[in-house]
Order: sequence, then C-alpha cells, then structure tokens
Amino acid sequence: MAAPIEFWFDFSSPYGYIGSHRIDEIATRHGRGVLWRPFLLGVLFQTTGQSPLLDQPLRGPYARRDILRTARLHGIPFRLPEPFPFASIAAGRLFYWLEGRDPKAAVAYAKAVYARAFVEGAAVAGAEEAVEVAARLGHDRAEALAALQRPEVKQRLKEINDEALRKGVFGSPFFIVDGEPFWGNDHLDQVERWIETGGW
Amino acid sequence: MAAPIEFWFDFSSPYGYIGSHRIDEIATRHGRGVLWRPFLLGVLFQTTGQSPLLDQPLRGPYARRDILRTARLHGIPFRLPEPFPFASIAAGRLFYWLEGRDPKAAVAYAKAVYARAFVEGAAVAGAEEAVEVAARLGHDRAEALAALQRPEVKQRLKEINDEALRKGVFGSPFFIVDGEPFWGNDHLDQVERWIETGGW
Repeated sequence: MAAPIEFWFDFSSPYGYIGSHRIDEIATRHGRGVLWRPFLLGVLFQTTGQSPLLDQPLRGPYARRDILRTARLHGIPFRLPEPFPFASIAAGRLFYWLEGRDPKAAVAYAKAVYARAFVEGAAVAGAEEAVEVAARLGHDRAEALAALQRPEVKQRLKEINDEALRKGVFGSPFFIVDGEPFWGNDHLDQVERWIETGGW
Repeated sequence: MAAPIEFWFDFSSPYGYIGSHRIDEIATRHGRGVLWRPFLLGVLFQTTGQSPLLDQPLRGPYARRDILRTARLHGIPFRLPEPFPFASIAAGRLFYWLEGRDPKAAVAYAKAVYARAFVEGAAVAGAEEAVEVAARLGHDRAEALAALQRPEVKQRLKEINDEALRKGVFGSPFFIVDGEPFWGNDHLDQVERWIETGGW
C-alpha cells in the first residue's frame, strides 16, 4: 500500500482546520491514508522570521476575510476561537501521547480539538483545556494531565518539530505526498493531481 | 458592461508572470476585461514587513520548487531571470507612460516585459533594459528614455503604489473582482467562481 499523505498542521491554525476537513476525503478517494502531524508553527517562525498571520498589517485583514470566505465555500462551520491565536503545545503533546497508544484515538483527538476551537470557538490553550477535550472522548483526565508533564512526551513533540524543520515545513497546513511538499489548502488540487499522476 | 478584473502584479514576480498567463483566459470566458496594474512589491514590504520570497529560509526553497512545478502544470514556459529579483521601477514607469497614450500598448508592453524576464531569462532591471523591451515593440527609444525621467511619470507610479496600499494589496499576483480581493494564482478558481456567482 502506498505511503500515507503527511498532513502537517498547527492546532491554532484556521487554515489547518479547514485543511483537516478536506484531506480525508481526498485521501479516501485515492485509497491513501493520512498521517496527521500537529506541530508548533510558532517555533518554526524562529527560522522563517514570520509572525502570526492575523496580526500582520494588510495580510491579517485579508486572511480574516479569506478564511471565512473559504470556509463558506466548502460548507465548513467556522468560528475564530477566543483568544486567538492560542498556544497549542498542550494539545500537541496529548496528540502524540495518544498516538503512542492508539493512532486512531490520536486522530479522533485532533478532530475534537479542531471542533472545540473552530466550531465551538474556544481556545484549546492550556493543559486544562487540552485535557478536557481528551476527557470528552473518554480518556482518563488524571492520566492525561500527568502525561503532559512526562519528559518523553515533551521530547516527542520537540522531535516532531525538528522533523518538520528538516522536511522544510513552514506553514499550516502543509502536505507531503511521496516526498513532494505542498503548502496550503489552495494546493489541494495539485496534491490530488500528484497522487493521480505520480508527478508532472 | 461589468467592471474589469483588477490584476495587480510586480514585473519581478514569478507568480505574477504565471498569473498573467491565466487571467486573460478567465476574463475572456466571462466577458470581462482585465485592468493590468503593475506595482512595486518591494515598496509594500515596508508596510507588510515581508522580504523577497526566494531569499527566505524554508519558504524560498519551497517557492523555487513550487514555481517550476506550477509553470509545468499549466504548460507555461519558465526561466528565472538573472539576476533575481530585479528592480522593476523602470518597467513600471514605462507601463503607465504607455497606458496614458494607449492602454492596449501598455498591456502589450507588460506581456513583453514578462516574456523578456521569464521566458528569455533576462532581468528587466534598469532604464536601458526597460526601454529595450519598448523599442522591440516599435516605441521610440529616445522618447521612452526621456519619459522615464519626467516627474509626472514618476508620480504616476507612486500614486499607483498608494492605491495598492489603500486597497490592501500585499502580494503578487493579487486580483480584485467587484471589490473582492484574492491573493495568488491558487485563488483563481475562487476568482472565477466569484465572477460566475457574484459571491457566496
């Protein structure tokens, strides 16, 4: 079976959220899996010199408009969390902790974090908030809270961010298909064509 | 007749060049005109805090790959000019000087500048280079060279850049359809749908 599509995203990224609604459908259509890879975009900003998009002059106001417009176009419910952006480190740690036990549970958690943030409009910012989403899925609250403090859980997310940097990931969402990188939902047409054709 | 689609671009922008190949076809398909609006992206960087894309860590190497890949996908010939990026102020001034006399001649000039830069691979960087492209189209070399120094020609390009800033343009290409802004070729599908539906 062909390798899964790598789907890199930050839990605090509106465009990542929109991408999460679209990538499964594309992968399923082509018999591919999806490897969900939350990372910390803010850490990458140290390398790219970028800053949170919505705070930027000109680009920020445009992005606010474009995000709402794109969500409407695809029929995806959307609310901007309050506050925004939020630190996604706790949610990221819990994702990889869950993945180590059950990859499917991790993906379910990722989708629940995005729904909490961008459908309910609540920032999943701290340990409490990240654990709350896990608890709603039936995971043990105390166990999840303890996991957040374990060195190997912290280390795992650091390694993931190093991997993102090594692979040239610099934005959210970012897709890698058979080694080929594609940035942004706007490239999903190209992602699909690349899967179909093996490149051009 | 409906207002033309505003097509904002920098003569030194590879993505602007690619957009120039696609916007006419879309406009024609929907009975729309195109208002070509070269501007100086570098001046806007003072407001956005951005820098030339291809020089940026991570984003630069990705963009080089993405530009070639996108040009191949659409069957658009592409070479990166040497040197790159180049200062596009002279070409911009000549464009608006020509537009004042004959809008069609200005569009022909814009296409010729892009072909010189991204098909032949020669930077259209200075007065000599910008005038050379005009001369090839039959414009008087001495007259064009003199125009470049005229205060009202310089002023016109400044006003255009002010207009870009006022309208929230921050990248190249940037399209405005009936007041609605769209950044990047990746949004051309949305541009077309907006024309067809009047918005969603």
